[in-house]
Amino acid sequence: MARESRLESFIHRIMAQRACLNYAALLIRGLGGPVIELGLGNGRTYDHLRSLFPERDIYVFERRIEAHPDCVPDPQHAIVGDFRVTMPNALARIGRRAAFIHGDFGSADKAKTAALARWLGPRIAELAAAGAIIATDQALDAPGLEPIPLPAAVRPGRYFMYRAQPVPARHRPTPVRGRRRAPTRARAVRPRRRRGRS
Amino acid sequence: MARESRLESFIHRIMAQRACLNYAALLIRGLGGPVIELGLGNGRTYDHLRSLFPERDIYVFERRIEAHPDCVPDPQHAIVGDFRVTMPNALARIGRRAAFIHGDFGSADKAKTAALARWLGPRIAELAAAGAIIATDQALDAPGLEPIPLPAAVRPGRYFMYRAQPVPARHRPTPVRGRRRAPTRARAVRPRRRRGRS
Repeated sequence: MARESRLESFIHRIMAQRACLNYAALLIRGLGGPVIELGLGNGRTYDHLRSLFPERDIYVFERRIEAHPDCVPDPQHAIVGDFRVTMPNALARIGRRAAFIHGDFGSADKAKTAALARWLGPRIAELAAAGAIIATDQALDAPGLEPIPLPAAVRPGRYFMYRAQPVPARHRPTPVRGRRRAPTRARAVRPRRRRGRS
Repeated sequence: MARESRLESFIHRIMAQRACLNYAALLIRGLGGPVIELGLGNGRTYDHLRSLFPERDIYVFERRIEAHPDCVPDPQHAIVGDFRVTMPNALARIGRRAAFIHGDFGSADKAKTAALARWLGPRIAELAAAGAIIATDQALDAPGLEPIPLPAAVRPGRYFMYRAQPVPARHRPTPVRGRRRAPTRARAVRPRRRRGRS
């Protein structure tokens, strides 16, 4: 078979996803903060995150919960509604920037997916702690998100990983309880030790 | 991680599926007949079957077509409706027994899945040409279906493969155009050369 069937493409993508999640778990060891999952779907990836991060809070953003009954987060950790409504208030809701953010939000509608990726990039950067890892099925282009090398098994373009640049202290939120305005978008801060690999 | 997450379980299952489909393509070389796919879903597996069997008719049974637009069979090859309605008339519709039948019909409802597997087994056996290969995500137990070894990469129980026992000539249908009654269920015919591996 010369061409890659959709089944094969899917297998490669989901294996890339797993490899990136497992790699992220190693990378964020020692970095405090919750995990954020953008999109619950049927809950398979959420279940994997639970097994990787048993000691962390995992917050899931989903338009409508339709997951396998065993893979539904409790109401405190399920942030239900359209991303464009829930994401801007996410930091107030969660109260802390995340150590790891995973987003598997691509759909068959390429234009819609690209628009969502453009919109989500800065929102993800806002929610990421300094040094946090981000893994997504779509490329992100946002100030503060620095691409990092993928695990060796993952072909470039199958999945995407970033590290959140350190954010100046004045941009860092303190844990909050009530609602408040989302903080200003993190600027494209250049870390001091720019030439070294962080 | 001690336990297998649902993501990992899914990866193993879908890789098992691909391995079984590819193996079946080797096994049915030289055996005439169409391919039957029970359940279209989003069309990923159908797309893989198309790439494996470009020269064969592929008939898809599905309750309601909701696949990726690129992976929808033409109306002649899409048999839409509840399995329990469409399967008993399938032979009349297709006009020829199949060389390969694939069924990925398990759902989260275990009792319902088990009942469907019990019901489908004999229907699948009816639709299979002598020597045909069957691959399913659920175990089948039906007269005329002999389990065969899985590809080495597939853990027993992840997927299931069978070879259809030769059916006596009187049970074999001739190609038909119009509707007719579904043939009597194939009996548990014992092939003459029973001790040899077919």
